[in-house]
Formats: sequence, C-alpha cells, structure tokens
Amino acid sequence: MASTITHVPNVTNLRTRLARAAGEAEKAGADALLIAPGSDLRYLLGVAGGSFERLTCLVVPSGSRSPLLVVPKLEAPGYQSVPVGELGVELATWEDGQDPFALAAGAAGAAGAGRRVAISDTTPAMHVFGFRDALPGAEQMLAGPIVREMRMRKDAAEVDALREAGAAIDRVHARMGEWLRPGRTEAEVGADIAGAIVAEGHTLAEFVIVGSGPNGASPHHALSDRVIQRGDLVVVDIGGPMPSGYCSDSTRTYAIGDPPAEVAEKYTVLEAAQRAAVDAVRPGGTAQDVDVAARSIITEAGFGERFIHRTGHGIGLDVHEEPYIMTGNELPLDSGMVFSVEPGIYFAGEWGARIEDIVVVTESGVEALNRRPRSLTVLDG
Amino acid sequence: MASTITHVPNVTNLRTRLARAAGEAEKAGADALLIAPGSDLRYLLGVAGGSFERLTCLVVPSGSRSPLLVVPKLEAPGYQSVPVGELGVELATWEDGQDPFALAAGAAGAAGAGRRVAISDTTPAMHVFGFRDALPGAEQMLAGPIVREMRMRKDAAEVDALREAGAAIDRVHARMGEWLRPGRTEAEVGADIAGAIVAEGHTLAEFVIVGSGPNGASPHHALSDRVIQRGDLVVVDIGGPMPSGYCSDSTRTYAIGDPPAEVAEKYTVLEAAQRAAVDAVRPGGTAQDVDVAARSIITEAGFGERFIHRTGHGIGLDVHEEPYIMTGNELPLDSGMVFSVEPGIYFAGEWGARIEDIVVVTESGVEALNRRPRSLTVLDG
Repeated sequence: MASTITHVPNVTNLRTRLARAAGEAEKAGADALLIAPGSDLRYLLGVAGGSFERLTCLVVPSGSRSPLLVVPKLEAPGYQSVPVGELGVELATWEDGQDPFALAAGAAGAAGAGRRVAISDTTPAMHVFGFRDALPGAEQMLAGPIVREMRMRKDAAEVDALREAGAAIDRVHARMGEWLRPGRTEAEVGADIAGAIVAEGHTLAEFVIVGSGPNGASPHHALSDRVIQRGDLVVVDIGGPMPSGYCSDSTRTYAIGDPPAEVAEKYTVLEAAQRAAVDAVRPGGTAQDVDVAARSIITEAGFGERFIHRTGHGIGLDVHEEPYIMTGNELPLDSGMVFSVEPGIYFAGEWGARIEDIVVVTESGVEALNRRPRSLTVLDG
Repeated sequence: MASTITHVPNVTNLRTRLARAAGEAEKAGADALLIAPGSDLRYLLGVAGGSFERLTCLVVPSGSRSPLLVVPKLEAPGYQSVPVGELGVELATWEDGQDPFALAAGAAGAAGAGRRVAISDTTPAMHVFGFRDALPGAEQMLAGPIVREMRMRKDAAEVDALREAGAAIDRVHARMGEWLRPGRTEAEVGADIAGAIVAEGHTLAEFVIVGSGPNGASPHHALSDRVIQRGDLVVVDIGGPMPSGYCSDSTRTYAIGDPPAEVAEKYTVLEAAQRAAVDAVRPGGTAQDVDVAARSIITEAGFGERFIHRTGHGIGLDVHEEPYIMTGNELPLDSGMVFSVEPGIYFAGEWGARIEDIVVVTESGVEALNRRPRSLTVLDG
C-alpha cells in the first residue's frame, strides 16, 4: 500500500466548526442540529461514526449550550478518538431497551410548537420519525443547507487530502494497460481495478465503472460480463475514499486499438469541451458558467442532446456534494471549492466517452487534481 | 473467484411479493408504500437500485392500482433487468430540473388530510421531507414494519443463498492461519481477509473486525495498527454480501499460541452458552428464549455483566434486520427465519471473545449455516 496521510482535523479546527455550526443553526432559525453518522459528523467531530439501526446523533444546540453526542454503549469505543473534553462535547451512551431519542431531544431543547430542529440530510426515516415523536410539535427541517455552506469551502488541509486522493486514482489510471485488454470481461477488469484502488491507498473501491462499447453510452453503467473487443471505446470512472475520508473520482476513456476516424473526431470535441470548462473555473465565476462552457462547444458541434447530464458535482468527504455544476446554478465560485468537471457524450447502442477531472478553485483560477492525459489513450488491442 | 449462484428472484416471486406488499399496506392503513433504493427495493423488484442524491422510488399503492417506479433518466439503464411489463409496474424517468416528488406523489394518490404513506426505513431525510412537501397533510409512517413481516420469513431460494454465503465465509475462516500471525498489525491481517472475502465469492468485504488482545473487548472494534502478539486472543468478525444480495456474517475467536488456563476456562463457558442458544432455536420458541439460553449460562458462571449485547440479529439482504434476538422480544420463531447467534464476553482492557453462527429455523428445529469449529482455535505463535 502506498503511504497515505491520515487527515485528522485538529481540535482547533473542530472547535471552530462546532461553534460555527451552532451559529449557522441560529441564523437559520433552528433550535438545534441533529447530525447522523456520516460525512457531516466526520466534518464536525473527526469521526464518521456508523451504525446500523441503533441511533447515534450529535446534537448541536444553537447559541452557546454544549453539544451532546448520543452513542450506543456498544459502539462507544469507536468514539474514543474524539476529544470530547477539549471540544466541550458531552457524551451520553445508551443501551438496548433505553430510548435514545428522548436523550437527544432533551439536549435539543426543542419540544413544542414554534420550535425547529435541523436534521442531517442522510438521517434514515426511522430516525426522522423517532425525533418527530420525541419532539412533538417541533418543525423538522434539513441540516444540509446549513452544514453545506461550511463544507463547500475546503481549507488547506482538506485540499491537501483531495490532492492526495487525486494522485492515488491517477496511479490507478496509469496502470490501465495492465488490465484493459480484449477478451476480458468488464467484471474481470473491474476486479483488477478495485484491487489497485485499494493498493494505491484508498480504504475502499467505492465505485468502478467499466463501460465498454455500447455500455459506455450508459453513464452510470457499472460492470457486466460483456467481453471487451478490439475497436471498443471503454469509459473507466473510478474512485473511493482515502484514509483521510476525502474521496477521489476520475474518468478516462480508452480505445482498444485505433478507433474509427468519426469516433476520434467526436472525442476531440469532448476534449475541447472539458478543457474549456476547466478554463471557465475561477473565483467570481459561477457554477453555471462551467456547465455552459462545456455544453456550448458540444452543442455547436451538433450533438448537444448527447450530453445528458450536468457537468459536475462537488467532492470532499462525499463523492457527490455541493456545489453542483449545472445550468441554473448561479452560485459564485469561491476559492476552496472542489468539484468534478466531467462532460460526456453518449450514443445509445453504440459508444460513449467521458473525461473527468477534480478541480479546485484557487485564489487566482483553477488547479486540476487529476493529471493523466485527457486525449483518447489507445491501448494496443 | 469461487463459483456463485446469482439469486435473481423470478417474475412469479416478484409479482407475488408486490401484490402482497400492496395488501399489507392496505391492512396497515397506508395509501401507498414509498420504497427507496436498498434491500426493500431489491426484495420487491430484484434490483437494489442505488443513487446518490437523486430520487429513485418505487410507489406501491394499496389495493389494485399499478406500482410506479420513479428513476432518474441517467440511471434508467440500471433498471433494464426489471421485467416491468410482466410485473405490471409503470416506469417514469425524470431529468435534472424536474420534480420527481410530484411524480411519485401522483402515483401514491395520498395528498390531503387523513391519507397516509408508508416510507421505507432507510429513506434519507432529504427525501422524507420532499414527500412531506409533495403530499401536504398526509401522515408519514414507516414501511419497515410492513415489509419486514414479509422479508423475515425466507423462502427456499433465499435460504439457499444464505447457505451459500455461510459456506463462503467459512472458507475465509478456514484460511485464517495464513494471515493471523504475531508481528503483523490488525490492519495488515484485515487487508488479507478482505481480499479473501471477495476471492471466496462475495461482492464486497463489508466489514472486517480483527480485535486483538484488549481490542477484542470492544465488540465493534474494526481494525487498528496494533501489532498482534503471542498470547493474544483475537476476535475475527467478518462478512459481506454475495452476488445474490444475501449476506454472510461469522465470528470466530483465535488464540495466538496457547492461552492462559483462566482464559481457556472462560472461553468454554462462552462455547457452552453459544451451543445452548443454538439448541434453543426451534419453531414455536421465541427470540427471547434464545437470548435467555445463552445469557443464563454466562450469568451462572459469574460474568453475566461481561455479555454486553443482545444474542443476535436477523440477516438476509441486510446484515442486520429482523428478528432481533434479545430479551423482551417474544416474537415466535417460525421456519424460514434466519439470524445470528453470537454471545460474547468482554473484559475491558484485557481481552474478549465471541462465537457467531448464522442459523435458520427449520420445520423441526435448526440448521447452522456456519460450520467451522467453535472451540478456541490455537494458531501457532
């Protein structure tokens, strides 16, 4: 395994984030944030947590009351790394048979009409309804918009972690010729790629798309038993989390032997569109600008209707997060925002192609975190 | 990779399940079930789906109206294997910018006071609230209790799939001596185990717990950089889904060299408790009986307070599902129910041990789906 940085935000980071979350909750009119295990929890506390059906919840009251972390007793050892004392977080454990919602509700202090709690976007319905019953009369709103404002702008350590993730997935793409050969199935190639994703430093091969020939025309195709053939274009879209929690995501399209001239020509349009979109990334520009830059080139070339998805998505502790790079999103880009730029063209039943880089908005422009060649890489059939 | 059965329920199975779900929804007073991607969807439609933030939802109206599957257009190719025509399911795709909740709400036909929709337990809050806004006035309840009654009793093909999963994880435990050696870290051993879990036929190494020495005293410890030492007991709790979707989960405890006599003696109590609990599994008995059988033996031996969790959990398309094997659960056991029997004893700061088998309730008693020796396996230090 390649060496990796385990990005553990320090106590000062976390204290700042918790205080800011409490302030943002207050501004949004929420009496408390109720944060489920996952990326929001990892952002605020340094651990993602994780549980199956048992409730784990970080209650962040607005204003200056102390946050409370509610954890099943069984899972408490997994939170030993959280410096609760230094963070001013109280810890409450519960055992099978006790009511954890009552514990959390007490700390939220939001029972009754006119009170509001903000619940993290990924909280499962079984817990949403548990809070509804434990806080009768309180209005439930999403915590996502509150936390997202914070998570969307990465600090230097977060950008470092994403840079490390980008380099790791680039190393996997660099080895593609070892695996991607005619006569092998997508699933066989995918298994090799998954192994390499972990070997190059990821904790998990979260997604492996190998879309060969006509399967490349389905943007979210994963793997199949289709045998790769000479003459195929193959879309390879791969990534996963690093030990830091921050994720990689990069797509390259490969040709198995020289492609037909018409395919190569259309690919050059895609390449120009992807480059134009990256060039459109700058502080003060908008998310929409980036989408328009890619889309207008593909549309002018006459196949705009083949570009059937938005141009990109934010990335960080989640593979998909804000900001979404699409027409209609006039969000001004700000330094520290990190997202994918991944236009694609899809000819149903025939072939598809996509090029995806993760980029970070810098003080003066843009930095690409993926560096592999973007032109069509021809692997010897 | 070992050969595997890909368990695809046939059209008749699925049609029966969909009709039964509609009937159960009606009995529960719900106008419709709203089923998110995940195990409930896989159970009812044969595919788990899966999406990030975009809404995918199977609407199953109560009574005889047709179900509607709402899918992002981008992800529609992933549902091509669903025989929608034969199942009488309508398919509605939506594109970025459209409102998928309105689509689903129309099919649910449940807007207005006095109407009720049952939402699957794992639906994220962002979609729960989307449905709340699209179905103003309708009461939201959990679909889990409705679908669980169906999923809890496995048919013969499901039991076959779980038997196959049990054999696959047994093959991994059989190879433990290759990896579990003094001088290696838990993380190193865990990486080898994860590779073997996939090599033996799983699609994913969903969880790998290697709890060595004092880490074994934390039931949900995963992996650490602790170096395994001669004299350690090591709890290895591993599993994941097979291509069928059905999961394995099995724990064995290993000794690195001969353990102290006092540890070996306590382990024999655990072994007797686990055996007694398995023997207590029979149709007509209760979930509680199984818990009591294990707990009373450990308690009589004087360390009941060291057994800090319930005795088991159901397993199927999810690693943790109903029925839960705990005191207080008087659910009568029925043939086709499948769950873990996994008592453990934990001495904080010192060591822990757990033995876990998946068992199925048969017409006449019980069948264990894991067959590896349950006594303490001493690996040569």
